[in-house]
Amino acid sequence: MNADELQASIDTVRTEVAALHAELVRYGLVVWTGGNVSGRVPGADLFVIKPSGVSYDDLEPGNMILCDLDGTVVPGSPGSERAPSSDTAAHAYVYRHMPAVGGVVHTHSSYAVAWAARGEPIPCVITAMADEFGGPIPVGPFAIIGDDSIGRGIVETLTGHRSRAVLMQNHGPFTIGVNAKDAVKAAVMVEDVARTVHHARQAGELIPIPQEAIDRLYDRYQQVYGQRTDARR
Amino acid sequence: MNADELQASIDTVRTEVAALHAELVRYGLVVWTGGNVSGRVPGADLFVIKPSGVSYDDLEPGNMILCDLDGTVVPGSPGSERAPSSDTAAHAYVYRHMPAVGGVVHTHSSYAVAWAARGEPIPCVITAMADEFGGPIPVGPFAIIGDDSIGRGIVETLTGHRSRAVLMQNHGPFTIGVNAKDAVKAAVMVEDVARTVHHARQAGELIPIPQEAIDRLYDRYQQVYGQRTDARR
Amino acid sequence: MNADELQASIDTVRTEVAALHAELVRYGLVVWTGGNVSGRVPGADLFVIKPSGVSYDDLEPGNMILCDLDGTVVPGSPGSERAPSSDTAAHAYVYRHMPAVGGVVHTHSSYAVAWAARGEPIPCVITAMADEFGGPIPVGPFAIIGDDSIGRGIVETLTGHRSRAVLMQNHGPFTIGVNAKDAVKAAVMVEDVARTVHHARQAGELIPIPQEAIDRLYDRYQQVYGQRTDARR
Amino acid sequence: MNADELQASIDTVRTEVAALHAELVRYGLVVWTGGNVSGRVPGADLFVIKPSGVSYDDLEPGNMILCDLDGTVVPGSPGSERAPSSDTAAHAYVYRHMPAVGGVVHTHSSYAVAWAARGEPIPCVITAMADEFGGPIPVGPFAIIGDDSIGRGIVETLTGHRSRAVLMQNHGPFTIGVNAKDAVKAAVMVEDVARTVHHARQAGELIPIPQEAIDRLYDRYQQVYGQRTDARR
Repeated sequence: MNADELQASIDTVRTEVAALHAELVRYGLVVWTGGNVSGRVPGADLFVIKPSGVSYDDLEPGNMILCDLDGTVVPGSPGSERAPSSDTAAHAYVYRHMPAVGGVVHTHSSYAVAWAARGEPIPCVITAMADEFGGPIPVGPFAIIGDDSIGRGIVETLTGHRSRAVLMQNHGPFTIGVNAKDAVKAAVMVEDVARTVHHARQAGELIPIPQEAIDRLYDRYQQVYGQRTDARR
Repeated sequence: MNADELQASIDTVRTEVAALHAELVRYGLVVWTGGNVSGRVPGADLFVIKPSGVSYDDLEPGNMILCDLDGTVVPGSPGSERAPSSDTAAHAYVYRHMPAVGGVVHTHSSYAVAWAARGEPIPCVITAMADEFGGPIPVGPFAIIGDDSIGRGIVETLTGHRSRAVLMQNHGPFTIGVNAKDAVKAAVMVEDVARTVHHARQAGELIPIPQEAIDRLYDRYQQVYGQRTDARR
Repeated sequence: MNADELQASIDTVRTEVAALHAELVRYGLVVWTGGNVSGRVPGADLFVIKPSGVSYDDLEPGNMILCDLDGTVVPGSPGSERAPSSDTAAHAYVYRHMPAVGGVVHTHSSYAVAWAARGEPIPCVITAMADEFGGPIPVGPFAIIGDDSIGRGIVETLTGHRSRAVLMQNHGPFTIGVNAKDAVKAAVMVEDVARTVHHARQAGELIPIPQEAIDRLYDRYQQVYGQRTDARR
Repeated sequence: MNADELQASIDTVRTEVAALHAELVRYGLVVWTGGNVSGRVPGADLFVIKPSGVSYDDLEPGNMILCDLDGTVVPGSPGSERAPSSDTAAHAYVYRHMPAVGGVVHTHSSYAVAWAARGEPIPCVITAMADEFGGPIPVGPFAIIGDDSIGRGIVETLTGHRSRAVLMQNHGPFTIGVNAKDAVKAAVMVEDVARTVHHARQAGELIPIPQEAIDRLYDRYQQVYGQRTDARR
């Protein structure tokens, strides 16, 4: 990849990441300036992330922030006069340790946080959840901002797990994906299943789905859903 | 019906089906690309359905997909380069076995799925439900995608039943109607009653409606509500 | 009032009633074509009401329907080619028996219907409810459409009561006001308090407000809130 | 500050306060004309507040109302022909007794009012709450409109407390901030945590956050979040 190609790739990710934040707003996953989306720059040790404390109305490709995989802002790049999201270290840790991950999303979406406040995984009792996550949504450890502990908790919980979503205890969901759009889809779906299973269980006994059926649903969905190669986009 | 008339009829259904997906969005019944509406082409063994995995923002008459009653895409028709909804086989089964059905809708709307995750019918305790569904909303069997079992479960549950909605266990609601708009209305109403009766019952004892009153409400509504022949549209 | 003045008065009420339906949509009180607003024509034995089964997107002054106080459509008036709301008889009964009422609203708003499905009044535990309704929201009898029983239930429950809202058992809220806007405000507020008190009580013991404080809040609000004579508009 | 500078400062606050009301609508914190935002005029014994009983659609800088710190409308100022918010006395009391406060917000947001109706503080079990409020959201005394008791209850509860939000018993949340925007942010966040912790606790045991972690989160967030000096804006 030459310099022009790299620049074009960065610009594409800036545009995608800026636009995807609107999906967090559309689905009511965020309030005020909370929540953040990042996307890896394909073929480079870089990712693009939201600036800290900026209104969703004001996000645009030019104020997204370009970081290296240590979470350091690339000096002189557009937007570099601002601080990146306060969750940048956690995103960077995930990109360093999970090379297949192309996108990371964090929100405080309400029902997902409610499960996280009890430290309770969401059981897999609806077929859409089997399709998308292949089983329960796991809980990650209690970890607070300031060092690598959030990133490490995400990576340890999701490595080898089918789920692209983890509920960090007392904190909220982080989701990963093959790209930023895929991680945003996981963030949307985790709140949807968190809400649905919450209400289902408040009113009585849940019917479990047999593991064999979960496996078949997950395998099928990962292979055939959507339009060919665009399946996870 | 000559070829021009058939084409005009197909075009009308394409326009209706594309537009009706916006109602699923308006009423919050779907997230991301989930959910689907189909409509039978009057007088032909054909129906029109949503493509798989396409954003609601991008649906338009020209990318709706025309299928025969086996669920096979009509080769060379507009949109046929894409895959139809992954629920196409279930829609096709319903059209083959219920000739009076002109529209089918499937969503994962949250409160309806919550009842489905417990496999519990929604009791008829509000007059709007008696009007619209004539009794409880029944539950269909657990069935997973991949063969005719979802379609068969829908048909077996709804045949001879007043309700135009069935909650497929652990999955979610499917609704039918005299046309696509009528089935969409049923999808909107089933979520509305699922939410209302959920909250009602969480807080105490429900008062049943006498069967005789349910019968009178249902009969009246099916005959006189709305503007004359447009009653179910 | 001469004929021109009467016509101008009717036109004003048509415009108001058509526009006020948008408030039912804005606050999520209605789905599909459910719900209806009516307004009395000042100084005449007439009221204006929504047509039956027409989409909220299509309501405009010219398709509102003019009725006499028996609920009979005024022949030849604009919109008279359509049927009025199926709840017209209930509205007419209220106008005939409560001369101070200038507006009536009916919805199936979800939390209010949940209380109605249990036949349980909403207790007055929040000051906004004391302001607006002066006490609990009462429940009216079970009554089904087809004769005067709904209208009679509304009038018997609200006559001499501070509340402008009644929850008709198993059915839903009807609200009244000095004009259509005031009745719409009551419909918005009754859903708001139904939701808030539902959640409050699900989580523990409610603290009652002393009757003396309720009385002071109600008296003050009815006299001084808002902009002078526009207080209830 | 000369007269032109004062006028410019007043105009800026009028514009901010008018615009910030749209955030209450955006986040669903208010219905009809309920709720109000005020902002102190920097360097003067004045504040700007919403008029009473005016629709959110009609708020603009010119109809905001300028008051002195006794809550008296400044005669002849734009908007002074209208009455200020019925909560003006409470806002004025806060400005008189808490000189560091630059903005005050009051709403009847639904989940916050639900906690207030039980007189129960919201426990600090989510990290976003530790960040923003530094501990539980306290409850203030039952106090009704008409004298200084609401303002006094707010000031007594929040003085020396980390929280910028108080739940006035049976009434609802009041929030304060370094300016109007900061107080609006607190109003948005208090409803978000009220909803999330409500749902969390309905479904089981909450996991407490250790006090030491709360302290670290609060200290960090107050110092480093957001874009430099704009941190609380």
